[in-house]
Amino acid sequence: MKKRGLLLVNLGTPENTSPRALRKYLKKFLSDRRVIKTHPLVWQPLLHGIILNTRPRKSARLYEKIVQEGEFPLLTYTAAQEKNLQELCPDVEVAMGMSYSAPSIETSLENLLNKGVEELTVLPMYPQYSGTTVGSVFDSVMNYFLKKDNIVDLSFIRSFYQEPLYIKYFADKIKNALAKETDIEALIFSYHGIPLSYVTDGDTYPEECTETTRLIMEEIGDFPHYQTYQSKFGPAEWLTPATDDTLKKLPGQGVKKVLIVAPGFVVDCLETLEELEEENRTYFLENGGEKYIYLPPFNDDKAFAELVKEIVK
Amino acid sequence: MKKRGLLLVNLGTPENTSPRALRKYLKKFLSDRRVIKTHPLVWQPLLHGIILNTRPRKSARLYEKIVQEGEFPLLTYTAAQEKNLQELCPDVEVAMGMSYSAPSIETSLENLLNKGVEELTVLPMYPQYSGTTVGSVFDSVMNYFLKKDNIVDLSFIRSFYQEPLYIKYFADKIKNALAKETDIEALIFSYHGIPLSYVTDGDTYPEECTETTRLIMEEIGDFPHYQTYQSKFGPAEWLTPATDDTLKKLPGQGVKKVLIVAPGFVVDCLETLEELEEENRTYFLENGGEKYIYLPPFNDDKAFAELVKEIVK
Repeated sequence: MKKRGLLLVNLGTPENTSPRALRKYLKKFLSDRRVIKTHPLVWQPLLHGIILNTRPRKSARLYEKIVQEGEFPLLTYTAAQEKNLQELCPDVEVAMGMSYSAPSIETSLENLLNKGVEELTVLPMYPQYSGTTVGSVFDSVMNYFLKKDNIVDLSFIRSFYQEPLYIKYFADKIKNALAKETDIEALIFSYHGIPLSYVTDGDTYPEECTETTRLIMEEIGDFPHYQTYQSKFGPAEWLTPATDDTLKKLPGQGVKKVLIVAPGFVVDCLETLEELEEENRTYFLENGGEKYIYLPPFNDDKAFAELVKEIVK
Repeated sequence: MKKRGLLLVNLGTPENTSPRALRKYLKKFLSDRRVIKTHPLVWQPLLHGIILNTRPRKSARLYEKIVQEGEFPLLTYTAAQEKNLQELCPDVEVAMGMSYSAPSIETSLENLLNKGVEELTVLPMYPQYSGTTVGSVFDSVMNYFLKKDNIVDLSFIRSFYQEPLYIKYFADKIKNALAKETDIEALIFSYHGIPLSYVTDGDTYPEECTETTRLIMEEIGDFPHYQTYQSKFGPAEWLTPATDDTLKKLPGQGVKKVLIVAPGFVVDCLETLEELEEENRTYFLENGGEKYIYLPPFNDDKAFAELVKEIVK
């Protein structure tokens, strides 16, 4: 039997909430050509001349709202899932790697190979494929192995947007919440957005988001629901409808009690805790909304390890 | 269910046996930095100044010995295996790709994706891993997907040197031959060689060859046998003992009746048909050898499709 390894990959987090640490993190993140497809000759001057001079301070303030005792939820929960999986699959070497911070994908791959792993599965922690997330992980893993003398049996999971255990997890969570909060009038599925031009280029991301929503709703049955996209950045056109716009308008249309869920995220992070729990909640309530319940994703729940075990088996 | 695809990859063949076609093929083959690791600034002048002026004519003559009615065995047998696999696995889209000729790996990947394949397995047709063969296939596949907007669930099989069905196939073939040719005094396992420096760099190739020999011999039981390496090219030190040296010496040591097998090859090609069937046979007989039986690999035998089905399942 070949020794098996599993690499869980997530986005990354700044080292701390100082603008300096944010600058370092954002510089790496926003220099990834999978994330920003604008030509570097156009983009790099903008990034260094404007964005890295203003955004780190703003981001640092946002991160301060979600970091508790120095712990970044994304990192803490990803580490918890690494531990859960190692306990569930003692024969498999499990590691986590981060696209834009430590431990890097490259370091974690090196560690797994040093431990004698001969059969490796890479699972980006993004249920829906997008070049900006999964594609970037793919590039990192492939660039690590390109020209390397010793490679391994490699499996790369591009997405799990339709996996029964994944769908069931969110469907059950929503059903339980609806059973308790019987006055909820609509469900909001909020996914991270991407520029529309990326979809024109061939990114299948919105198809997979729509399929996830459809499969979850199939479990739930008839219920008013909206699929929206959040976290728009920059002046280009992004996927619509936007989560914030939708939440600002809904109360005026008579929808004042909503349940919001973000199945595109496996663990809570800035985009869910700050944007959904705080910013969008405020928009909704300021515009006449009365009840706003955010349902978290897996976080440290062992159900995610069970799901991964099923995916990679 | 995601639509599955399987890409079988082999080395390639010249378009025909003209020196011109050989030049084109060798130029591509010998420009692969996985195959020739000498720095291009040193290697390319040598390649263009000397090698591509002399070797194509010589290679053309060798190919003429093995090509029948314009058919190159490697291409014909690989196509036969593609067909066998498609028949055995009707739900999987099967294609073949060649590293240094048509259909290229890139073209075949494109075709598979155009057919809607969402889950792809790449199987290089080399039982033992080497950077020079499998590593090069890996680079081609990865370079194809790098920066691409739409990638797929990808599994890459680095080797199958220890697969039970593979071991059994060669062991049975050898056992049957030994039962018929009861005067055979020794078995020769001949594997394609690689430069010794590649092994120092980390290529695990000889370990996997040795393990294949060991596993086959475990099935056969006690019998005199030799593991050798063939096809040395250039002045550098290669893996030893060399197949030709061994066959020249054996008769003098009293071993005059041998069975030779090349389990590193899945289908017959120049290295088996010309080198083993002809050249090395001559060395052996000229030096006092009396019986020389070469056992072919899978070629068009459906057992290979059964093996692949088992590997990728």
